[in-house]
Amino acid sequence: MSFAPILEADVELWSDTADVLIVGFGGAGACAAIEAADNGASVAIFEAASESGGSTKLSSAELYLGGGTKVQKAVGYEDPVEDVYGYLMASNGPQADPDKTRAYAVGGAEHLDWLMSLGVPFKMSEYPGRAMMALTDDCLMYTGSEKAWPYVDKFAPAPRGHNLKVEGDNGGPLFVQILTDAVRQRDIDVHLEARALRLIVDGFGPKQRIVGLVVRENMEERYYRADKGVILCAGGFVMNEDMMQRYAPELARSGTVPIGNPNDTGGGIQMGLSVGARAINMHEGFLSVPFYPPATLTHGIFVNGQGQRFINEDAYHGRIGCLMVKQTYPVYLVLNVEDYADYETASWLAAPIKGTGDTLNELASELDLPAGALQQTVSGYNDAVAAGVDSAFYKASAWLKPLSGPFVALDCTPGAGAFLPHFTLGGLDTTVDGAVLNNEGIVIEGLFAAGRTACGVPRRGDGYASGSSVGDATFSGRRAGKQVLAAS
Amino acid sequence: MSFAPILEADVELWSDTADVLIVGFGGAGACAAIEAADNGASVAIFEAASESGGSTKLSSAELYLGGGTKVQKAVGYEDPVEDVYGYLMASNGPQADPDKTRAYAVGGAEHLDWLMSLGVPFKMSEYPGRAMMALTDDCLMYTGSEKAWPYVDKFAPAPRGHNLKVEGDNGGPLFVQILTDAVRQRDIDVHLEARALRLIVDGFGPKQRIVGLVVRENMEERYYRADKGVILCAGGFVMNEDMMQRYAPELARSGTVPIGNPNDTGGGIQMGLSVGARAINMHEGFLSVPFYPPATLTHGIFVNGQGQRFINEDAYHGRIGCLMVKQTYPVYLVLNVEDYADYETASWLAAPIKGTGDTLNELASELDLPAGALQQTVSGYNDAVAAGVDSAFYKASAWLKPLSGPFVALDCTPGAGAFLPHFTLGGLDTTVDGAVLNNEGIVIEGLFAAGRTACGVPRRGDGYASGSSVGDATFSGRRAGKQVLAAS
Repeated sequence: MSFAPILEADVELWSDTADVLIVGFGGAGACAAIEAADNGASVAIFEAASESGGSTKLSSAELYLGGGTKVQKAVGYEDPVEDVYGYLMASNGPQADPDKTRAYAVGGAEHLDWLMSLGVPFKMSEYPGRAMMALTDDCLMYTGSEKAWPYVDKFAPAPRGHNLKVEGDNGGPLFVQILTDAVRQRDIDVHLEARALRLIVDGFGPKQRIVGLVVRENMEERYYRADKGVILCAGGFVMNEDMMQRYAPELARSGTVPIGNPNDTGGGIQMGLSVGARAINMHEGFLSVPFYPPATLTHGIFVNGQGQRFINEDAYHGRIGCLMVKQTYPVYLVLNVEDYADYETASWLAAPIKGTGDTLNELASELDLPAGALQQTVSGYNDAVAAGVDSAFYKASAWLKPLSGPFVALDCTPGAGAFLPHFTLGGLDTTVDGAVLNNEGIVIEGLFAAGRTACGVPRRGDGYASGSSVGDATFSGRRAGKQVLAAS
Repeated sequence: MSFAPILEADVELWSDTADVLIVGFGGAGACAAIEAADNGASVAIFEAASESGGSTKLSSAELYLGGGTKVQKAVGYEDPVEDVYGYLMASNGPQADPDKTRAYAVGGAEHLDWLMSLGVPFKMSEYPGRAMMALTDDCLMYTGSEKAWPYVDKFAPAPRGHNLKVEGDNGGPLFVQILTDAVRQRDIDVHLEARALRLIVDGFGPKQRIVGLVVRENMEERYYRADKGVILCAGGFVMNEDMMQRYAPELARSGTVPIGNPNDTGGGIQMGLSVGARAINMHEGFLSVPFYPPATLTHGIFVNGQGQRFINEDAYHGRIGCLMVKQTYPVYLVLNVEDYADYETASWLAAPIKGTGDTLNELASELDLPAGALQQTVSGYNDAVAAGVDSAFYKASAWLKPLSGPFVALDCTPGAGAFLPHFTLGGLDTTVDGAVLNNEGIVIEGLFAAGRTACGVPRRGDGYASGSSVGDATFSGRRAGKQVLAAS
């Protein structure tokens, strides 16, 4: 399959024309379509699958938003924009995009209002536990490393993960249903089982403008004209083995599992590249060791192949995952049996038990670690617990508890059986409003991107927070939906 | 400055025509030119600087070659191709390119012969010390982590760094002089102070062919036609702050220093991208903590902000550097004063002394480490030394020596004063013969790349060995110089 563009002059028959053509009916595409329509554009949206939703539907649809959202204020958090901005800039490290991050921090509260105006339900409540998503219908929770070192002392923490008012982990389907209804209620032309193949350009070369889309539907190739622009919202490339091997081989390491929908094959990114777009941050991604719930496992310690700790265990599971895969293997999570709790039923991790023991020596004899190393590490850790300060990694005092045995060690090493999911965070470089840039930083006329097809706010796996991708996808989709009209 | 291509039809006056046009007269460009000319092509080479050499001239011109080169055999190493291939594949990790790596392993001996046939002098000798390059006129030395864990038990080690027969660190100028003479002796049209600006194409779009080059020389823009192809050998992009920020922000971290020549501004990569080439591995690079010589510093231990060791200190300095910058800062090198030796005059590192002490407690009191951490680490290390096995990191026994004091700690933290150089290892994706590929993996007709403009054999900073870049640049330059004729 080639993604090379074709010339407008070679189109014999146009099937239809709209102001805005959108590739992909997931969270980003839906929001782009709604905003474009609400701003007066005629819109057509093309989805390769037989229903809307994309990877947003498969997710819990948490939204990472701050700056004093309606829910945050209702439960008592002001969450100043500067703390949101500061945390996101720091956690995205050298890759952070200041313009996109500021817009996202400033616009978070309004974005939640907008979603609520579409009917997305949020309970004015907080879920207090340490989990990946609320398992009740409560809304707000900490979904990143805001309360953990090295961020907690620099930026006032606040819970920013917004879960839908729905029991358990079912946010995605409801969220997508509401967005889909909103699209259907508008004069938006929806094409399902319609795979975008190529862009149509008014000419080849540096000054080309994107004027349409070739789509395969009903077993034929059809040509759609875009009077104002095309928005690529076709997800990332985690399901494309060739692209993963070429662009993100470390992320695709053996023993970890790609997550997303089957159409996350990078088609949007490829169409962009084929007209000269630049892709950035292509090696980066989310990579998690989803070890909580149960929260009690956070009382344990992760150790690497040297028997050393390497992280404050109260950090976000994705931060730990990204550091974990850079260690010498094996990697174990060592804890008291009493903290094992309901691990087998509550956890996504599924890491097998590597060893147990009433004493540390007994446990160590079942692990592949240098002699004495675990004992030394646990001794140092217990000293820190007794002193009340984890002076090595600054795990918060609430999580400090002696490792006194009996013990159990879970094998988190990639390939040993644990579920270690990953997805991509690289994509097309865009302006803060979603206009796609070429390799010289010049806007490609008529082309926009949002969601994981673009490189958005979340840029580092070790700085990721749950809700960042759906938050960024819907936020960036809206901005592109508006900008396509402003730019033309 | 725009790198966008122009149309052949828009060229009013061609200044000249050659079969092959080469951008950049460094190691890669020189070898491409020589091979193309020796295979019967007319060749013109364009260099932005006022003399030849590029970053090769600034280097020690070590060449990392194996598989039983003339020098290896003379001093008693067979170095089977499979060990070269295995080591390079392992050390380049998931990014390794099997085709390029095999060609390089298989062709190493012939490549040295070819360079010797041009007059490059190598002494049939080995330099036994642990250094970055031979400081005598001896030839062979270990310049990677071949004798270090985790490679030493998997692939039979052999010295593969080939230093020129010249006293001290002066390989680059001599090497370039010999290549330059070889170019001058052939019917190759050399243009100095001639900056390539844009490619010329026979048409825009997916089927375009590269047919020439726009060059700024003598204060005007001139147009050169390439009957068979253009080879981009313009170096990497380490001197382009904007590209570094966009593509390799982690590599460009504060406190480290770009090394290369001032024209390593990514012009070759940009010209490629402007005609639809794909760039890969753009985030990666070499990043070194050049702490030896003196070799005695290898008796010390590196510790991170937790006071933990994180590496076998007998690994290659670039491997240590890449792992070092992923640690929690500060990072110190702790050693006995007696091993400090001639550090101040012999070392490139220039890391300042952070603390000293007759006792470990005294030293620790001057360092920013968690209480007791350094003492625990040194105690564990000394136990390992006494046992004769570094069971945590497997530093070779020859380097195991008790840390008994008096002590000194060097501050290697980026920004604290140490010299920590970096350069890029990402570039245009090419076939094993240097043909440039577009985003779909299809060859762009008439376009080739070699050296750091392409993504070659060396792909990871933590697997780099000295001599890999000049080795790969000259090797890939030759292949491109031949392929441009075969492909047309």
